[in-house]
Amino acid sequence: MDYSSEIVKVAVQEVSRLPGIGKKTALRLVLHLLKGQPQTIADLSAAILDLADKVIRCTECGNISDYPLCTICTDPRRDDTTICIVEDMRDVMAIENTARYRGKYHVLNGIISPIDGIGPDKLNIAALFQRASLPEVSEVIFALPTTMEGDTTMFYLTRKLARDGLKISSIARGISVGGELQYVDEVTLGRSIAARVPYSA
Amino acid sequence: MDYSSEIVKVAVQEVSRLPGIGKKTALRLVLHLLKGQPQTIADLSAAILDLADKVIRCTECGNISDYPLCTICTDPRRDDTTICIVEDMRDVMAIENTARYRGKYHVLNGIISPIDGIGPDKLNIAALFQRASLPEVSEVIFALPTTMEGDTTMFYLTRKLARDGLKISSIARGISVGGELQYVDEVTLGRSIAARVPYSA
Repeated sequence: MDYSSEIVKVAVQEVSRLPGIGKKTALRLVLHLLKGQPQTIADLSAAILDLADKVIRCTECGNISDYPLCTICTDPRRDDTTICIVEDMRDVMAIENTARYRGKYHVLNGIISPIDGIGPDKLNIAALFQRASLPEVSEVIFALPTTMEGDTTMFYLTRKLARDGLKISSIARGISVGGELQYVDEVTLGRSIAARVPYSA
Repeated sequence: MDYSSEIVKVAVQEVSRLPGIGKKTALRLVLHLLKGQPQTIADLSAAILDLADKVIRCTECGNISDYPLCTICTDPRRDDTTICIVEDMRDVMAIENTARYRGKYHVLNGIISPIDGIGPDKLNIAALFQRASLPEVSEVIFALPTTMEGDTTMFYLTRKLARDGLKISSIARGISVGGELQYVDEVTLGRSIAARVPYSA
């Protein structure tokens, strides 16, 4: 494509590096910005630049944070005996939204995926081993995606974490609340039957 | 949603102001940036900031440009007698890609749309009247979208532009090249029949 402005061309190139955004969408976004106020553009640019130099990882749990220790790790009301292992910040937000978990988290910042060249060495794992070996920790809960990568990560970590007195669990997998059996995929339904739980009225 | 970082929250807010990008997509994009190199973030931020203060409009045709006159308006090989009226820069790029037009353009930078509060006063129209009144201009071609807004804009401008010696035309509307009649929508097909053209083998 032949852009009438070199600056627009560069902006389209940079924006289209983002996942799921192609050249056409990038051009649409750039033209939208050009139609708006210069202040909007400056605000967006500054907010993005802040990501490069102001955002850090919590030194304890690895979650994205503005301070060396995140708000969950410094909260004295959180239960220190349980660590929930998740892939990234979005999973922490999703679980926090349920208001059903009061323990702490450990954010791997990724998941083992040989196809993408992500091995255990690229994940926030060393700090997890250290935390999980503390005597006050009695349970780690895996809350990883139900994918091959999630299962691989869970298998790998379980073998490394196992020690006497540490309970290792995974969040329940099965049909969703409100799920109609006829629309559930075969694998989920099959596993739900195999993993059936006692029920009493 | 409860973000663990205020900076991430601000970035998500700014990114989700873009059209078609919701909070979840914005968070996905921000986390993608955080996983990458700080230089990538700095490049994106700088490219966006350049849009605010370096991109201008061609004083002649209104197209987005890095200089007061765009490369098409300064090209001596372009035909001065024809002006093609388009909505925005993307339409110029689309027509240029066909390599079938050698005249000049006039970019309205929008289209009349009362529902969005866009009247003729918000478009780049005054310069168009001036250009089209020059004696060397013999034809203006409308290349606007086939929508109510496009038709309204065309109707409004035609009444204002009409003068002796000026041919006013619109790009042909009908079924696409390669289009199978059974899949063409009724309105397009109906208009194609009404606007049939002489044919000789």
